[in-house]
Amino acid sequence: MTVTKWNVRAGAYYDSVVLMQLQRGLLELSGVVDAGVVMATQANRDLLAANNLLPDSISANPDDLLIVVKAEAEDSAIEAIGKVDELLARRKSSAVSQDFRPRSLSSAVKQLPEANWVLISVPGRYAAGVAREALDLGKHVFLYSDNVSLEDEIALKKTAREKGLLVMGPDCGTAIINGIGLGFANRVRRGAIGLVGASGTGTQAVTAQIHNMGAGVSHAIGTGGRDLKSDIGAITAHQALDLLAHDDETKVIVLVSKPPSPDVATQLISAAQSTGKPVVIYFIGYPPPARKIGNLHFAISLSEAAEIAVNSNWELVSGNKLPITNYYLRGLFSGGTLAYETMVGLQATLSPLYSNSAISDSQILSDPLHSQAHTIIDLGDEFFMVGRLHPMIDNDLRIRRMKQEASDPEVGMILLDVVLGEGSHADPASELAPVIKEIIEERAGKLEIVAIVIGTDDDPQNLQSQVDQLKEAGVTVFRTATEAVEYISLRFGSHTPSEYSPVNLEQLKQPLAAINVGLESFYESLTLQGAQAVHVEWRPPASGNDKLAALLEKMKNKK
Amino acid sequence: MTVTKWNVRAGAYYDSVVLMQLQRGLLELSGVVDAGVVMATQANRDLLAANNLLPDSISANPDDLLIVVKAEAEDSAIEAIGKVDELLARRKSSAVSQDFRPRSLSSAVKQLPEANWVLISVPGRYAAGVAREALDLGKHVFLYSDNVSLEDEIALKKTAREKGLLVMGPDCGTAIINGIGLGFANRVRRGAIGLVGASGTGTQAVTAQIHNMGAGVSHAIGTGGRDLKSDIGAITAHQALDLLAHDDETKVIVLVSKPPSPDVATQLISAAQSTGKPVVIYFIGYPPPARKIGNLHFAISLSEAAEIAVNSNWELVSGNKLPITNYYLRGLFSGGTLAYETMVGLQATLSPLYSNSAISDSQILSDPLHSQAHTIIDLGDEFFMVGRLHPMIDNDLRIRRMKQEASDPEVGMILLDVVLGEGSHADPASELAPVIKEIIEERAGKLEIVAIVIGTDDDPQNLQSQVDQLKEAGVTVFRTATEAVEYISLRFGSHTPSEYSPVNLEQLKQPLAAINVGLESFYESLTLQGAQAVHVEWRPPASGNDKLAALLEKMKNKK
Repeated sequence: MTVTKWNVRAGAYYDSVVLMQLQRGLLELSGVVDAGVVMATQANRDLLAANNLLPDSISANPDDLLIVVKAEAEDSAIEAIGKVDELLARRKSSAVSQDFRPRSLSSAVKQLPEANWVLISVPGRYAAGVAREALDLGKHVFLYSDNVSLEDEIALKKTAREKGLLVMGPDCGTAIINGIGLGFANRVRRGAIGLVGASGTGTQAVTAQIHNMGAGVSHAIGTGGRDLKSDIGAITAHQALDLLAHDDETKVIVLVSKPPSPDVATQLISAAQSTGKPVVIYFIGYPPPARKIGNLHFAISLSEAAEIAVNSNWELVSGNKLPITNYYLRGLFSGGTLAYETMVGLQATLSPLYSNSAISDSQILSDPLHSQAHTIIDLGDEFFMVGRLHPMIDNDLRIRRMKQEASDPEVGMILLDVVLGEGSHADPASELAPVIKEIIEERAGKLEIVAIVIGTDDDPQNLQSQVDQLKEAGVTVFRTATEAVEYISLRFGSHTPSEYSPVNLEQLKQPLAAINVGLESFYESLTLQGAQAVHVEWRPPASGNDKLAALLEKMKNKK
Repeated sequence: MTVTKWNVRAGAYYDSVVLMQLQRGLLELSGVVDAGVVMATQANRDLLAANNLLPDSISANPDDLLIVVKAEAEDSAIEAIGKVDELLARRKSSAVSQDFRPRSLSSAVKQLPEANWVLISVPGRYAAGVAREALDLGKHVFLYSDNVSLEDEIALKKTAREKGLLVMGPDCGTAIINGIGLGFANRVRRGAIGLVGASGTGTQAVTAQIHNMGAGVSHAIGTGGRDLKSDIGAITAHQALDLLAHDDETKVIVLVSKPPSPDVATQLISAAQSTGKPVVIYFIGYPPPARKIGNLHFAISLSEAAEIAVNSNWELVSGNKLPITNYYLRGLFSGGTLAYETMVGLQATLSPLYSNSAISDSQILSDPLHSQAHTIIDLGDEFFMVGRLHPMIDNDLRIRRMKQEASDPEVGMILLDVVLGEGSHADPASELAPVIKEIIEERAGKLEIVAIVIGTDDDPQNLQSQVDQLKEAGVTVFRTATEAVEYISLRFGSHTPSEYSPVNLEQLKQPLAAINVGLESFYESLTLQGAQAVHVEWRPPASGNDKLAALLEKMKNKK
């Protein structure tokens, strides 16, 4: 038989290190079998219950501290609970002398004026306020805290962008700036590979492997996991890409994130293209559009991202044609799979993209007979097929649609597949080429036709003659969808220059000096790495009493 | 000014080749500007409208034939419409003499008893009936027709499986059996690469490229696009894999499909594993779980699938441990990205898989505190983090959960990540290893612990000592998620022997002989390739009059 005793402390703020140490202290007491020290949120109460540490009929609010002790006998349990204050006090006295420690961000800045960074790891509900203060003081922010609202994140990042400052986070676990790790970071040698990471352990895995392979890291810039969602629009990732593009030490860039929102992905990929540097992209769980599109390389694992970056030795060929901007692509396919594979490839760079053979619901073309924006049509879809021969046999449907698309002045490129072999039309190019020639002449210089020709030299149509007829009509011919996808992605790739203040690169190159607000271990880690740092002895407004804090704020504003 | 005239012919059946030729015939008449000959479905009427060929206030049913002529003057239009019967008759007389052609499948079989295949390309609503007849006659079916119901597909494939026969399709565009292309197929040399293709042009693109690279194809078996959906359960794909696994000529297998349903994917991948041959898998638009898992290689494009197959020169290492069957994996991660990447890798082989950091909605773990089936938990998720230190700093949460999982007799493997570096716990292995040792002893031989250790030799924790401590406790240690994913996939990989009659391999190796029902061009293509073939002069029951057909059927059943 064991006995469980508990203690509830209403609405006071405790550092999570203090809570951990209190729990450990209780566990060391004689007769104590188990102990739990948590903020009494539903999740934490459920966790206690799962460990048989939640007494029946306990009453506590989510911002109350809940201390539970399970002991072999009643007196041990009571004794343990009685020692809580003593244990909390012991923790305090064992800490470094706090006399020299500032209690506010502004006084910390006076103590270390050269600080260019503020690390924030206070509880989520206070974190945005501290970050705002840091930005007002002209500092970059590393925001480790989670449970920060989306609204706060948007506001902070917009403010930062206007000031040419970075907000890495919220929920940013990892960064390496100028050789110094912030938050959780592996020790890696300095080198030519720069990272933009929307994921903490992703950045750790890649940087560690780069080091283990003998290469090194210039900077690893964290963005926080939500940065690449539509609401935020990848503000930090765009700043970071721009920064690394202009940093001479960075020769290769790695971009790691969970799958971004489609519109954000397109913009980021476009920005990555215009860095002009090799960029390795790994969107975890997102089908890679290709192995390679110009200067972009797509990886399928963290490990592969590191390998590609380290072994990057790419010749970068810059396009010799002006990109097709403000025009749309219309793909008219006879092969469903070729249409689908092309969609998978182009959805990363062309947005918005629609299809009657859509990959995601947002891509569904409402009327298969009328294209909109970039469109890929599978003309062999059942919808078109009632009583009609397949478009690989009968070219009528495709020729009509091709004329329809060409008459749309917004269309800059038409993509076709021409599938040869048994069963297909005996000479498709003879029917397609004259129409293509006519269309290209009519739209003088404003319309490009690209074709993917699938076939072998044994096919009954004469592969070479098919290719020749198409080329003679002005068609750019590829033999695989992969090659066509790379070509089209580069043709539509556009450089959209940033309209915001760039982040100050010179400041980034200064030795890192930082002010730490929150977890003391992050401060210790900074000093161990040789960085100048100051730790703020932070306490929430009114010691975490929200009502009192609101009252104080009101009085302050009245002055 | 042009004049449009039209003619509606109610409910009669016309071959789509006849319709195309009628349209072409009309276009050749003097004064005719444009013409449309279609079955009057809504889609086809919309298509006519898009080409300015749909007269106002026309009344026609979807199974009526609609003939529209646009001419320069009224008399030309009237004259053209008047020639429709003549043009239809001309088409018939120009065809090969039909005297020797059977009018039913059963009489065709008498004419060519060695026929082992029936090719069906009649309109969708009649196709299932013809296929059923072919199966009853003991023939494999190549079902080109689309617009066949899901119910019919399921019924046909179940019947076929019981009889050891294949139903490729419906909507199967392409196959190559024993060197002969069925439907649309490129001419490729024979060789050692076998294909299973749920997509027609996918199979064409891969086989053509294999040929163009100098290699060859044993068989390419089509399945139809819906085969890999849950409802069908990939019946044909499983039969085809089994067939190619047992075919001595096939040394490498390529499997190409749009993304299958998750449960189907898991079963297919498991079946591919147990072929023991190298299998290249390309699920178009599905994130590849890894480059390589044992004998499986994942491609990210049709073109790459061909390249990997041609250049395959793999040493196949067979596992030396018995696979963990009937047990579950529980992954307890401190790093969110590592958890997510591991999910992406394992979702292909472990099913069902749940997580609090799910990739798809169906994977969402309803209660993060209790695992179910295979589960991956991100312990650093916000849910767990209120007032608590991150699991990379504080091991308490993970140790408790590890004990909880180990006490579940259904759990066969626990997977951990151990992330070293600045900011993390100073010696995580010292806290994890003793608990692991204890757990392994308790579950004597029935529980395996795997860890992914992320770190560098410069990290403050001493990487080597961390790895040593874990190994000493009995942990299998990997340095990347990729390696762990491959290991785990192989450990849980299982051979589930088929409970159905295998497809007769000897029959497949016989020279292909086929009966063609539908598009005459497919028959012509067969004979041009040197295959024995008979074309059935097929007409729908009661000439396509459904009411009359139903009546005839009723009378037949009364006999």
